[in-house]
Amino acid sequence: MNDAPTDGSGGKARMRCTVLGLGSMGGGMASSLLRAGFPVSGFDVNQAACARFAAQGVAIGGTPGEAAQGAECVIAVVVNADQTEQVLFGETGCAATMAPGGVFVSSATMAPDRARALAARLEESGRHYLDAPMSGGAARAADGQLTMLASGTREAFDRARPALDAMTGTLYELGDQAGQGAAFKMVNQLLAGVHIAAACEAMAFAARQGLDLARVYEVITKSAGNSWMFENRMPHVLDGDYTPRSAVDIFTKDLGIVLDMARADRFPVPVAGAALQMYLMTAAAGMGKDDDSSVARLYAQIAGLTLPGRE
Amino acid sequence: MNDAPTDGSGGKARMRCTVLGLGSMGGGMASSLLRAGFPVSGFDVNQAACARFAAQGVAIGGTPGEAAQGAECVIAVVVNADQTEQVLFGETGCAATMAPGGVFVSSATMAPDRARALAARLEESGRHYLDAPMSGGAARAADGQLTMLASGTREAFDRARPALDAMTGTLYELGDQAGQGAAFKMVNQLLAGVHIAAACEAMAFAARQGLDLARVYEVITKSAGNSWMFENRMPHVLDGDYTPRSAVDIFTKDLGIVLDMARADRFPVPVAGAALQMYLMTAAAGMGKDDDSSVARLYAQIAGLTLPGRE
Repeated sequence: MNDAPTDGSGGKARMRCTVLGLGSMGGGMASSLLRAGFPVSGFDVNQAACARFAAQGVAIGGTPGEAAQGAECVIAVVVNADQTEQVLFGETGCAATMAPGGVFVSSATMAPDRARALAARLEESGRHYLDAPMSGGAARAADGQLTMLASGTREAFDRARPALDAMTGTLYELGDQAGQGAAFKMVNQLLAGVHIAAACEAMAFAARQGLDLARVYEVITKSAGNSWMFENRMPHVLDGDYTPRSAVDIFTKDLGIVLDMARADRFPVPVAGAALQMYLMTAAAGMGKDDDSSVARLYAQIAGLTLPGRE
Repeated sequence: MNDAPTDGSGGKARMRCTVLGLGSMGGGMASSLLRAGFPVSGFDVNQAACARFAAQGVAIGGTPGEAAQGAECVIAVVVNADQTEQVLFGETGCAATMAPGGVFVSSATMAPDRARALAARLEESGRHYLDAPMSGGAARAADGQLTMLASGTREAFDRARPALDAMTGTLYELGDQAGQGAAFKMVNQLLAGVHIAAACEAMAFAARQGLDLARVYEVITKSAGNSWMFENRMPHVLDGDYTPRSAVDIFTKDLGIVLDMARADRFPVPVAGAALQMYLMTAAAGMGKDDDSSVARLYAQIAGLTLPGRE
């Protein structure tokens, strides 16, 4: 059900929600929660983002702990495991200030063992942890239509449910322990990362063969060589537009986690390993903050090819 | 237009077609041509296939040259460039026996320079060459719904058109020279080969993480990590059914061509290179004739994992 909890006479009180990280994803999630009628507080290191959401009715706190004071549901939309640990257990963290019995929804992509460790530490204080990495971009975050790959205890799901209903279009319930959602997300990131690198390799290879790249896009997107990422990212290459929608450095991070997990388990992932090296080369060549389709520019740069829109 | 040419009073005579190679693809193409009303002759080294198609009305020849005697359109559905060269220019080849001014439609996957060389040699004798690698499996071949990635002269297209109309659902006209169709096909094969290897790597990695693989399939096919090949091939892994629909050895061949083309051009393709090594390992482990999703079994074998349906 997607209805917000009712308040007023006879209804249960609206759950107090906090969003930590008001960037393109967290900001959209805060908007979705406001729209559903929840009282929302928030924190971000970026003052402009804070001012923008304050104007929309988000109660801005000076620290994560201050923003989450008494919150029953805290959603952390930060970059990685270290930042998640910081907003929870850092000096100004929220673990001690959020409501006892409340739930912390962790959306950063991280290794499963980090998710398990954070959950165990938070649960010691009688609070709940939902491992809930997400899929879908800023537009779907703003529309309350994210996909979440979630795992956690029954109680964590139950307590977070009204907020999840407001933020997600698809909620996968993938297990009863923190770490399972994270593992599903890493399988997706392995594939997504390989597919973008392969798409860039194939487009540059096609350019080297002298093919019309717009025609290559037309043919491949209707053929067995297609992938969700090829279809989504290669228009950036055709347009020569490397404005970051998602940056190269996201995949140096996420494929880095995949390779770390695999190495820790003595499990070989040579295809993902080759893809990671391409993201690292692209970052090393100064394009780490650019769109992840910049891997195509790296191939072109190495081989002296001209891609659309390049100087 | 998909109508077969008319014959009888006032109509043009029905074009005489020959199909060289009556396997799962060529057999379907021969059936589509028969259905459209063309007189069809054929050749295959497999006597059982010949008998089956003789019963359907295909005039079987004892050699490629004999089958194609006087044919106006010869379609070669063989495995690679060497076999194509053999059926054209071998001692019993068809180059000298097919009708002067006729067209040879080459559907094997091969390097563009091989396609260009075959076309040049055939054109010296006043016959035409259409470079027409295909996409789509046996079912689409039987239904006359193949996709062809074709290039060649205007005359080659014009002469082959009635037969192409009977065999294809989608005909891409990709350039006026032999070799261009082949190059588009190799770009597709680079991606297809990488995506199958990545799918197998990701599923085995998911198994190593203890995830429910049916659930992984459900989540990934609705997420950004999806590919056409993941969606098509991973049910074989879930079913533990490695009956070859398309064999590992197809990709040791096709990614081998990609790597040869890239090396000849001094162009790096490290992601495709890593994928090729996985197919070679899988073939080395005795699974070259099995379904290409057997790459997942190789990972499982290396890491001591149990996949569905394995003993």
